[in-house]
Amino acid sequence: MQKMKLYFSPLACSLATRIAFYEGGIDADYEEVDGKTKKTATGTDFLTINELGLVPTLRTKEGELLTENAAILQYVNPELAPRDPHLHQWLCFIGTELHKGIFAPLLDKKAPEEAKAYALAKVQSRLDWVAKRLEGRTTILEKLSVADAYLFTVLNWTIVTPIEIAKWPAIASYMKSMHARPAVAKAFAEERALYMKEQERQAS
Amino acid sequence: MQKMKLYFSPLACSLATRIAFYEGGIDADYEEVDGKTKKTATGTDFLTINELGLVPTLRTKEGELLTENAAILQYVNPELAPRDPHLHQWLCFIGTELHKGIFAPLLDKKAPEEAKAYALAKVQSRLDWVAKRLEGRTTILEKLSVADAYLFTVLNWTIVTPIEIAKWPAIASYMKSMHARPAVAKAFAEERALYMKEQERQAS
Repeated sequence: MQKMKLYFSPLACSLATRIAFYEGGIDADYEEVDGKTKKTATGTDFLTINELGLVPTLRTKEGELLTENAAILQYVNPELAPRDPHLHQWLCFIGTELHKGIFAPLLDKKAPEEAKAYALAKVQSRLDWVAKRLEGRTTILEKLSVADAYLFTVLNWTIVTPIEIAKWPAIASYMKSMHARPAVAKAFAEERALYMKEQERQAS
Repeated sequence: MQKMKLYFSPLACSLATRIAFYEGGIDADYEEVDGKTKKTATGTDFLTINELGLVPTLRTKEGELLTENAAILQYVNPELAPRDPHLHQWLCFIGTELHKGIFAPLLDKKAPEEAKAYALAKVQSRLDWVAKRLEGRTTILEKLSVADAYLFTVLNWTIVTPIEIAKWPAIASYMKSMHARPAVAKAFAEERALYMKEQERQAS
């Protein structure tokens, strides 16, 4: 058994895994992957580790590679991953409808304007659905789960899109409450600092 | 406890759930949803059942509504859903990278050409990844799982896209082997017949 190692890019969806680690007080190694050059912090070509170049990628306790956010989240912190079909439902919804259906094209500088417009057309119905669930709640399920780590991470991206979270008060209030959690605030602050450095590197 | 009920549209991703039922010999009710009018076979407005109008939607044994393919698949046939992080990995990959990232825009008549081109650009790397996994195998994991039901369903859609599965012999051979399973062939043949009827209805 070895320590788990997370390959991440600052503020990418791998932030959810960091939150899951911090919430559980779980010690792990972290290696940054530059989203543009695909080089890791130790100079390794990340494509030799994961040929699709996607983060999060996890080296498990058994030394195997595990990819895909929903899989990694449930693996790294089982306490926050109850065997509840609704956990799968929300992980799947966040991954397909929000992350891939809306944010992936919006955040991709190479995506054509029409692909972004196509994505934006789905925002209202999808966030209405999320807001309905979060009405009067501070977590998606009965208590904190890895779905919250993922939802918080994805909805943070709205700040660099035309989506205004304030239009959905239940979501705005949920985000505030999540950010007030010490583990979440720590994970976010650390990755935000790394993100600023990455932006500086890429600009120079 | 009541019988489970699946809301489906012919050959949509809900076919995976039907395959999971048939593979397990599990008795369930099925109600067709017209993808265009969103009316169910009994004349109900499906949006009053699932406001996003998405299939599969399942009424569980407990009478609750469950949505999202990965969640429903694991719920309906636990025998084909081992507690293996790689099952989650593949369900997530198929749902995000293939279904949402590639096929959703390709199959949507309202999607702009640029959104389709953006999706098509990802086909090579994603199907290379799938083909690498399937090399010399007839199932994604060690034995049949719900991930196979989902992958078979999604890859069937290639026939109405410019994607030529024959370019990836490992995938072509996998599809043939999946289709040779009696439960898969039965589910596919039934939904194909319903699909033809739906096309006739929509054309008239």
